Amino acid sequence: MAVGEGFTGTLAPIAGITIGVGCAGIKVVGRRDLVIFELSPGSTIGAVFTQNAFCAAPVQICKEHLSTDKPTRFLVINTGNANAGTGQQGLDDARETCTRLAAHKSVGPEQVLPFSTGVIGEYLPMTALANGLPNALATLATDNWHDAAQGILTTDTRQKGASRQFEYGNETISVTGIAKGSGMIKPNMATMLAFIGTDAAIDQDLLQQITREAATASFNRITVDSDTSTNDACVVIATGKAQAPRVTSATDPLYLHLLKTIKELMLSLAQQIIRDGEGASKFIEVRVEGAQDTEEALAVAFSVADSPLFKTAMSASDANWGRILMAVGKTKMERLDVNLVDVYLGAVQIVRAGQRAQGYTEAQGAEVVAREEISVRIVLNRGDFNESVWTSDLSHEYVRINAEYRS
Amino acid sequence: MAVGEGFTGTLAPIAGITIGVGCAGIKVVGRRDLVIFELSPGSTIGAVFTQNAFCAAPVQICKEHLSTDKPTRFLVINTGNANAGTGQQGLDDARETCTRLAAHKSVGPEQVLPFSTGVIGEYLPMTALANGLPNALATLATDNWHDAAQGILTTDTRQKGASRQFEYGNETISVTGIAKGSGMIKPNMATMLAFIGTDAAIDQDLLQQITREAATASFNRITVDSDTSTNDACVVIATGKAQAPRVTSATDPLYLHLLKTIKELMLSLAQQIIRDGEGASKFIEVRVEGAQDTEEALAVAFSVADSPLFKTAMSASDANWGRILMAVGKTKMERLDVNLVDVYLGAVQIVRAGQRAQGYTEAQGAEVVAREEISVRIVLNRGDFNESVWTSDLSHEYVRINAEYRS
Repeated sequence: MAVGEGFTGTLAPIAGITIGVGCAGIKVVGRRDLVIFELSPGSTIGAVFTQNAFCAAPVQICKEHLSTDKPTRFLVINTGNANAGTGQQGLDDARETCTRLAAHKSVGPEQVLPFSTGVIGEYLPMTALANGLPNALATLATDNWHDAAQGILTTDTRQKGASRQFEYGNETISVTGIAKGSGMIKPNMATMLAFIGTDAAIDQDLLQQITREAATASFNRITVDSDTSTNDACVVIATGKAQAPRVTSATDPLYLHLLKTIKELMLSLAQQIIRDGEGASKFIEVRVEGAQDTEEALAVAFSVADSPLFKTAMSASDANWGRILMAVGKTKMERLDVNLVDVYLGAVQIVRAGQRAQGYTEAQGAEVVAREEISVRIVLNRGDFNESVWTSDLSHEYVRINAEYRS
Repeated sequence: MAVGEGFTGTLAPIAGITIGVGCAGIKVVGRRDLVIFELSPGSTIGAVFTQNAFCAAPVQICKEHLSTDKPTRFLVINTGNANAGTGQQGLDDARETCTRLAAHKSVGPEQVLPFSTGVIGEYLPMTALANGLPNALATLATDNWHDAAQGILTTDTRQKGASRQFEYGNETISVTGIAKGSGMIKPNMATMLAFIGTDAAIDQDLLQQITREAATASFNRITVDSDTSTNDACVVIATGKAQAPRVTSATDPLYLHLLKTIKELMLSLAQQIIRDGEGASKFIEVRVEGAQDTEEALAVAFSVADSPLFKTAMSASDANWGRILMAVGKTKMERLDVNLVDVYLGAVQIVRAGQRAQGYTEAQGAEVVAREEISVRIVLNRGDFNESVWTSDLSHEYVRINAEYRS
C-alpha cells in the first residue's frame, strides 16, 4: 500500500556527480543493491546521522572518514544488509568496503563513505559485495539518479526523488535528491538514507549547517512507527560545478536560496517516505499551534502521530477525536489548560474548549477521515509556536509486512 | 485473543465491603454496566489516578471528593461511557451521579466516588444511569466480587481478579481485588480501573502510601500500546473489620505485610491485563539489568516494550534481535557503551557485547519466541539497577479491534 501518486518527475543531473548502480546479490540475486556516487574533486559535503546508540558500523566509519581532512570522493551504498549489531567484524567489513573501492579508483580509503541498509545483525557478504564493485563502477554516469533511487530501496514500494532548479544571477543552480525509507522511521537528526546533490559551490561548514537545519525541518518531522533506525544517514553534496560564486558566508543571498531549496527538497523526500510508509493507506499531517515553544509543539504532535490508537482509527477512517485528546493529554506539559484546546479535522472543528464542538456531527468528521490525505490541527492556545509532523496510519498491512520481514 | 488461562480462582469477600451489580443499558441493553461498592463506616481509602491532562470528569470529581474530610462510603462505576472530553456537562453529570446515589443511601454526595470507562467524548446517559441505581443497590452483597469483575469490563475478553490471605498474629487478613483494562494501556500512576479491598485497619495516609508504592511497582510497569487512558484509577479500601490492630506507622510489621500482599495482588492484576491486552497472543516480560538508575532501566524497558517493530516481530514469533538492539539504542542515555550490552531470550543468550553471541543459532531463538510467554532480558552492564515491565504483542487482531471499536 502507499498513498497517492509516487514520484514521477525528472531528476536533473548534477554536474560533478556520477552514479553507478549494480546488482551484487547481497540478499536477492539480480536485484539492484549497490549504488556508488563519485564526487568531482573540490566537492564539499554535509551529513547528519542517526542518534541511535546502536548506530551501524558504516555510520561509525562515515563519521571517522569525515573527521579526516581528506575530501570525500565516493559514496558506496548497499541494501539487503544493514551491517548493524555486527561489532568489530562489522567495522572491519565497512572499512574493507572502502578500501576495495578506493583501490579501484586510486583514492584513499578515507575518501570513501560507506552506507548500508537492510536486515540488522548479519555480517556483510564481503565476497559478493567486492565482486559487485567493478560492475557498478562501470556504469558511472551523470543521469543515473532514477536508477540510484531504485537501487537504495528495501521494503519501500516506490522510488523517492525530488529535483529543483533556481536562477541566481545569470546562473542556474540545480539541486537533486533521492531517499529511501518505509519502516523504522522516526529519524532523529536524519532519515533512513537520503542523498542530495547540488552544483553550487559552498564551504563545507556552511553546507553542514544547511544539512542540519534542513533535516531538522523535514526528516526529523516524520514518523511511521516511532522507531529510530540504526542506519539513518542524510548526505548533501555540493560540487561547485555551476558558475555561481562560492558561498562563504551564511549571510550570502545564495546561502539563503540554497537553504530554502534544500529544505523544500528534503521535505518533499520526507513526505514521500510517509506516503510510502509501511502499510500506509493515509497521509496525515498533525499540526500543533499555540504551543509555548517548539519542543512542546513537537512533543504534542509526535504524541498524536505515534499513538497506535489514533493511527488505527485513521486506518479505519474513524474520526475518533477522543483518541486525539487522549494523546494530547498524555504528553508531558506544565499546567495544560485542557479547556483551551481546539481540534480541527481538515476544515471541520471537532473540539472546542476541550470538548465536542457545538454543532459538530460525526458525518462531518467521517467525510474528512475518509480521504487519503488528512490534516489534524490541534490548537493549544497557550503560546505562539506552531509545528507540523507527518505520519501514516497503522494498518493490517503494517503488521503483515513487519511480521513477515525476515521470512 | 488472550494469552494463557484466565483467572479462575475464588475472590474472598472482604468484611465491610458489599457490592451491587446492575444493567443500566448505558451502551448495550442487558449488559452488566453498573457496579456499586458500599464501604462500611470507618473504612480508609487509598487512590491513584491517571496523569493524562485530559483526565475524565469522574477522575476530577473523585479527587474533589477525596480532598474533603468526609469519609468515602460508596464507589459507583459505569462502563460503556468514559465521560471524558465532556467539559462542564461531564462534571455536572459525574456530580449528579453521586448526588443520586447519595440520596438513596442518606449520605453526602462527597462520600461517593464516581468512575467511568468506555467511549470518550459522549455525554453520560443520565436517565438510564439514574434508573439503574436502585436495581444495582438492591443486589448489594459481600460475595459479588466475581460479578463486579464482569461488570467493569469493556473490550476485555476476561475477568481479572486476585485474592490473598495471610495470618497476622491470630488473625487472618484478606485482600481481594479486581481490575479491567485491555487497550489504551500505559498507566501512569494507575491503571484503567482497579478496586482492591482489605479487612485490615490502617490509617488513610499509610494506605495512600501503600497504594502509590504498589501501583508504581505493578500497573506502572505494563504497556499494551503506549497510550495512557483519560480514566485510569486504582483504589484500595481498608475496612478494618479484621480483628488485627490498626496500622498507624510505616514501621509496623503489618504495614510491611500489607504492602507486600497488595503489591503482589496488583502485579497479578496488571499481568492479567497484559494477558488480555487487545489482540494479545504473547505475554512478554522485558527485563533490564545493570542500569545506572531506575529511570534508565524503565526507559530502556519501555522503549523495547512499546516498539511496534519489536511487537510485530513477537507476534510473528520472529526472534528479530536487531529490533531489540534498535529499541535499546533509541533510548536517550548518556554515553551508552553498546559493546557492553548482552541480550537474552529466555535462557538463550542472543547478543554478547553488542553483537550476535558466538554459537547462537536462529533455531534457538525461534524455539523461545514460539512460546506464548516470552522473557527478554537486556543487560546494560553499567550499573546496579534492574526493572521489569510487561507487554503484549502487536497483532492483526489489535488493528482489527481498534479499527472497529466505535462501529
